[in-house]
Amino acid sequence: MTEKKLTGKIARERIRLMEVPRPPEGLIEGFRRLGHASGILSDIMDELGITGVVAGSLLKPTIPGMCIVGPALTVRNMVQREHVYETARRHVNRMAEFEAHNLALPGDIVVIEGVPGISNMGGISAQTGKRQGEAGAIVCGGIRDVAHSRGVGYPVWSTEVTPVTGKWRIETVEINGEIEIAGIRVAPGDIVLADDTGVCLIPRARAAEVLELAGRKALAEEAKCRVIDAGTAIPDLPGNA
Amino acid sequence: MTEKKLTGKIARERIRLMEVPRPPEGLIEGFRRLGHASGILSDIMDELGITGVVAGSLLKPTIPGMCIVGPALTVRNMVQREHVYETARRHVNRMAEFEAHNLALPGDIVVIEGVPGISNMGGISAQTGKRQGEAGAIVCGGIRDVAHSRGVGYPVWSTEVTPVTGKWRIETVEINGEIEIAGIRVAPGDIVLADDTGVCLIPRARAAEVLELAGRKALAEEAKCRVIDAGTAIPDLPGNA
Amino acid sequence: MTEKKLTGKIARERIRLMEVPRPPEGLIEGFRRLGHASGILSDIMDELGITGVVAGSLLKPTIPGMCIVGPALTVRNMVQREHVYETARRHVNRMAEFEAHNLALPGDIVVIEGVPGISNMGGISAQTGKRQGEAGAIVCGGIRDVAHSRGVGYPVWSTEVTPVTGKWRIETVEINGEIEIAGIRVAPGDIVLADDTGVCLIPRARAAEVLELAGRKALAEEAKCRVIDAGTAIPDLPGNA
Amino acid sequence: MTEKKLTGKIARERIRLMEVPRPPEGLIEGFRRLGHASGILSDIMDELGITGVVAGSLLKPTIPGMCIVGPALTVRNMVQREHVYETARRHVNRMAEFEAHNLALPGDIVVIEGVPGISNMGGISAQTGKRQGEAGAIVCGGIRDVAHSRGVGYPVWSTEVTPVTGKWRIETVEINGEIEIAGIRVAPGDIVLADDTGVCLIPRARAAEVLELAGRKALAEEAKCRVIDAGTAIPDLPGNA
Amino acid sequence: MTEKKLTGKIARERIRLMEVPRPPEGLIEGFRRLGHASGILSDIMDELGITGVVAGSLLKPTIPGMCIVGPALTVRNMVQREHVYETARRHVNRMAEFEAHNLALPGDIVVIEGVPGISNMGGISAQTGKRQGEAGAIVCGGIRDVAHSRGVGYPVWSTEVTPVTGKWRIETVEINGEIEIAGIRVAPGDIVLADDTGVCLIPRARAAEVLELAGRKALAEEAKCRVIDAGTAIPDLPGNA
Amino acid sequence: MTEKKLTGKIARERIRLMEVPRPPEGLIEGFRRLGHASGILSDIMDELGITGVVAGSLLKPTIPGMCIVGPALTVRNMVQREHVYETARRHVNRMAEFEAHNLALPGDIVVIEGVPGISNMGGISAQTGKRQGEAGAIVCGGIRDVAHSRGVGYPVWSTEVTPVTGKWRIETVEINGEIEIAGIRVAPGDIVLADDTGVCLIPRARAAEVLELAGRKALAEEAKCRVIDAGTAIPDLPGNA
Repeated sequence: MTEKKLTGKIARERIRLMEVPRPPEGLIEGFRRLGHASGILSDIMDELGITGVVAGSLLKPTIPGMCIVGPALTVRNMVQREHVYETARRHVNRMAEFEAHNLALPGDIVVIEGVPGISNMGGISAQTGKRQGEAGAIVCGGIRDVAHSRGVGYPVWSTEVTPVTGKWRIETVEINGEIEIAGIRVAPGDIVLADDTGVCLIPRARAAEVLELAGRKALAEEAKCRVIDAGTAIPDLPGNA
Repeated sequence: MTEKKLTGKIARERIRLMEVPRPPEGLIEGFRRLGHASGILSDIMDELGITGVVAGSLLKPTIPGMCIVGPALTVRNMVQREHVYETARRHVNRMAEFEAHNLALPGDIVVIEGVPGISNMGGISAQTGKRQGEAGAIVCGGIRDVAHSRGVGYPVWSTEVTPVTGKWRIETVEINGEIEIAGIRVAPGDIVLADDTGVCLIPRARAAEVLELAGRKALAEEAKCRVIDAGTAIPDLPGNA
Repeated sequence: MTEKKLTGKIARERIRLMEVPRPPEGLIEGFRRLGHASGILSDIMDELGITGVVAGSLLKPTIPGMCIVGPALTVRNMVQREHVYETARRHVNRMAEFEAHNLALPGDIVVIEGVPGISNMGGISAQTGKRQGEAGAIVCGGIRDVAHSRGVGYPVWSTEVTPVTGKWRIETVEINGEIEIAGIRVAPGDIVLADDTGVCLIPRARAAEVLELAGRKALAEEAKCRVIDAGTAIPDLPGNA
Repeated sequence: MTEKKLTGKIARERIRLMEVPRPPEGLIEGFRRLGHASGILSDIMDELGITGVVAGSLLKPTIPGMCIVGPALTVRNMVQREHVYETARRHVNRMAEFEAHNLALPGDIVVIEGVPGISNMGGISAQTGKRQGEAGAIVCGGIRDVAHSRGVGYPVWSTEVTPVTGKWRIETVEINGEIEIAGIRVAPGDIVLADDTGVCLIPRARAAEVLELAGRKALAEEAKCRVIDAGTAIPDLPGNA
Repeated sequence: MTEKKLTGKIARERIRLMEVPRPPEGLIEGFRRLGHASGILSDIMDELGITGVVAGSLLKPTIPGMCIVGPALTVRNMVQREHVYETARRHVNRMAEFEAHNLALPGDIVVIEGVPGISNMGGISAQTGKRQGEAGAIVCGGIRDVAHSRGVGYPVWSTEVTPVTGKWRIETVEINGEIEIAGIRVAPGDIVLADDTGVCLIPRARAAEVLELAGRKALAEEAKCRVIDAGTAIPDLPGNA
Repeated sequence: MTEKKLTGKIARERIRLMEVPRPPEGLIEGFRRLGHASGILSDIMDELGITGVVAGSLLKPTIPGMCIVGPALTVRNMVQREHVYETARRHVNRMAEFEAHNLALPGDIVVIEGVPGISNMGGISAQTGKRQGEAGAIVCGGIRDVAHSRGVGYPVWSTEVTPVTGKWRIETVEINGEIEIAGIRVAPGDIVLADDTGVCLIPRARAAEVLELAGRKALAEEAKCRVIDAGTAIPDLPGNA
């Protein structure tokens, strides 16, 4: 079988994996059924001693009310060394997040260790990601063309929004390597869940275990909510809620 | 008359008041009639030499467009000393904001001097506060489960949102004592008004005076707005607006 | 011809221009046709070596989804020296942004080098700006009465929102002089475009050139979007998108 | 035995302990022999799963090169509610860190959960602390009169320095209660070690264990240093250093 | 009498005063006798209801242990509009702090409302200020060549140090106008006192009154210190210190 | 010739170069002769359109008054994924800056893209670097044991100091690859000059050109200083200084 055709925007050897490992059958659906579950997942990760949660105050969603789940397709960006005054005139474009879209399989979430103060993803890129079937993106750094990505229904969680392009300022140096997002280490294939409260980054090897425990906790919380709705006095709530 | 049944989540002597002093008849309704009045109240407090205003950029609302008014039921949280790795496994839960909900009377606003970077109030807690008839909450620190609290119509103003639970990280050390919110001292029973522009914290003893003056100012501003709508040239506006 | 009647809130000699230079016929309409174009304009400015772009993370819109374009009417504010405790009681009001509204021509955008942590524009001021036909305002500093300005459909991009009035804390020291907004120098008559992603401040003398190039780039981007929608594989996209 | 004479600056019931628990014989001397050991103590606390370390970038020393060790005498400050304009004129002084000095025994370290942006300890206070035999102070918040405290040889680690007095702005609300310093919970009697690199806050009950392990580690590190000085190649260093 | 010869680096009409108003005979010496008195001055300004104190954490001295006093010679800098890539090549230098040195009289303190992230004063400039007999400088923004200015004994308090020149990035737009330093309004001739704890900016018209009260307070504090040194128990200190 | 013996702390293929390219004969000496020249180098880089300067406010020296020059030996650190509670107990040490010391040739400067809030270099490491003949280190992130590194005369410029070890928290993932320091791209062999004012990072290929121009500028500045010392009036200074 021949390898997928590439864009050539980044050297082949800097693509550590051509395809993000597929999550086991039903895993993503399982997480999705939990709904806006960043809180529950964070609790389970606490109990298992796993780090991997980022505040929604830091990674802010472009489309409030959305919740996405999927495996991480990772991208690492760095600043270019050349002066932007020159690269902008000579159109020296070293960004390669389109290669990431090219490699994306349906349901993937593009997770970018980006450059702060600069856009690491624009509207056409978002539209392309949508077409490829991605669930959305997580960007540590700036993004732009928010109206565009909202318009096509491609949600992004980012630390900043800014019109300033990364095209002449950024170089994509690695795809599907290990990256760092807001102090959290992320590997390709780690499971990402993002909602209005924040972003959970679950190590692939622990995802099934996390889902199992989260499912149980979700049931317990629903039960608790029913008891509260039923009017039980707080001192009589199980565990006092 | 016997005292209200308690949850036992916090020592009895750390609850400084079992009930927040009730505002005088009509006071809350009076403030409510002013609408989104954080600006007018801030002006009156300026004129009276009262400090007590926090920017909406700092305490951000979960439900834009809401405006709440009510007496403050105060809660003070501190970090736990034990390592979260251990408390999370052993389920050492020292948060007691459910005791605050238990003590709340309809219309109260729970005001939490919380811990930064951590959730001081989750969705089930918000749902419980809603059921108790609280107007909402003000949290200096993180909150979580934003979709949940929005879903039940319980508005919260907080400095952060994050999935990371306070259950194993926080201890509630006092209820209805004096607290500090963003540099402002708050006593239980102080009147809170919160809208999209910010939060006003009015000392209980001055609230009637503030309302009286605010009502007059609101009328004057409405008059001014009518004159502007009528097309009067700016140099001819009274006081040049 | 007699000069416009003034409010007297600021000395006449501190008004550097009585009227913002009018953009050439069709220029504003041209920019408006580009839609949410902060990204495209930023790119063109990059290519021409022009600085003048501010992140939407810094200057945040009060009405998401809006996009405004127009010439800048500039205002510079400074703190008052007197203690606010005294000025608030004595009603020492040295703000003069109403003079700016008075001088505004339809389509102008009021751009304020304001004071941080304090409101540099309130609701009545926004309503007045709306009546004067302004497109909106850009405020480096705080604003207040967000519900009011939203209600009258007057959009503002500001770094902060806070109920704390500038009336007794701020002095307007110059109108239609050169100002600095988030590190960018702005002259009266510079063309402002603001959307959810950020604010572009284009020197007046370069605006036609920027528009010309931006128009071409917008067409090219639309073409690119059509190709993407048509399903062309990423490695086959022109310039790989 | 009669209780120590008090200043009356704070209500007696707000003094949780009249005397900080004395460390066991030899403990402080043991820590002192380790020298600038914040790094070693931090390592041992890591291994034992104890939190309690604050960066020297945050708590900066007034006298570089100093290292102090001793038990914590804790103080909690809050802002006053009244307007400083009034309290400054009426000399409403509610600070009580002189009561802390009054209660201090030789070797104690005053640890203040202070108010940011304001001085929580001045030069006369530092001089008094020196006379009482305190080892120094740790202040989360501002201090002032740096030349004075340096002059009497009383070292302070603080987050800020500022001339602005707390006298009319701060109220001391508790002495020898539990406090929070830069996210770390501190109890009276906890062992404090501070050097140029940072501050360690060791729970009293674990201090002997920490010292024991730290002593061993210090010996191992000295041995390592001798081997390095002797010129052993890095790949041949034990554990590769 | 002819006016002083100028450098021509800034338009004559942008120099609001050719000479900073001289302080009354003995005033500066009076302040100087107080020593490191930022704390005492801040207290007196508090009592008189005067704002004007900046934290030493914000304006940091280049030469610790120094204390300077003198009248403010004010300078206002703004960013240039042109791209630094071009101005640096074409040597477009619009800084005019050398004009400030030219206008300085012995004892003046140059106070610069500078541009952040960029040097507003370098080593040759400091050396020139020293030669002119200035007491030093206060710079809100960056400075550079710290070794040079230390070497010639010219102390500077600045918010930043950075090698990046302002020559091609900054324009000096006003000399001896009113400026703003860290939220404090400063007029030419205001009295500046700076020490390790911070910077006091005293309105010229109030300086004699401030000095008079500060002198009395300094005497009272010295008396207090003698009583402390004499060993009086804290509860017996006058006013409990 | 056999390759240098390695420590094995990092996989061989993650060491991109076994040896930092040697600067041409005399280059380092040439820079050294310029003295505290971060300002001059920054100017030359500005004129040549080269980015590469970091503020001394950000990268702060441990030994004020030092100035170092040398080629960069680069190190990239990332957080570990495992929970520190576990790695600290199991002594999972993945830092490999000792491998960097092992590879260092006399005069090299270790430049670390480190992890914030954590120490990326301790005292024993500094002592080892000193023994290897390194000129010092630049660390974007924390360092510790400041007394130790000062004691052996090994200067470090870092963004933070903190006792918290990186041993159980950090993984060194690359040596002598390209890194990013405070927004500046650095390649192994780039020339580093650091003084109290800041850090210059000069691309290897441009270093000779920068030195040549800097030497000329240094001469011109010295001449200017002599003219100033000679008492020439400012308006008569060449270029008005």
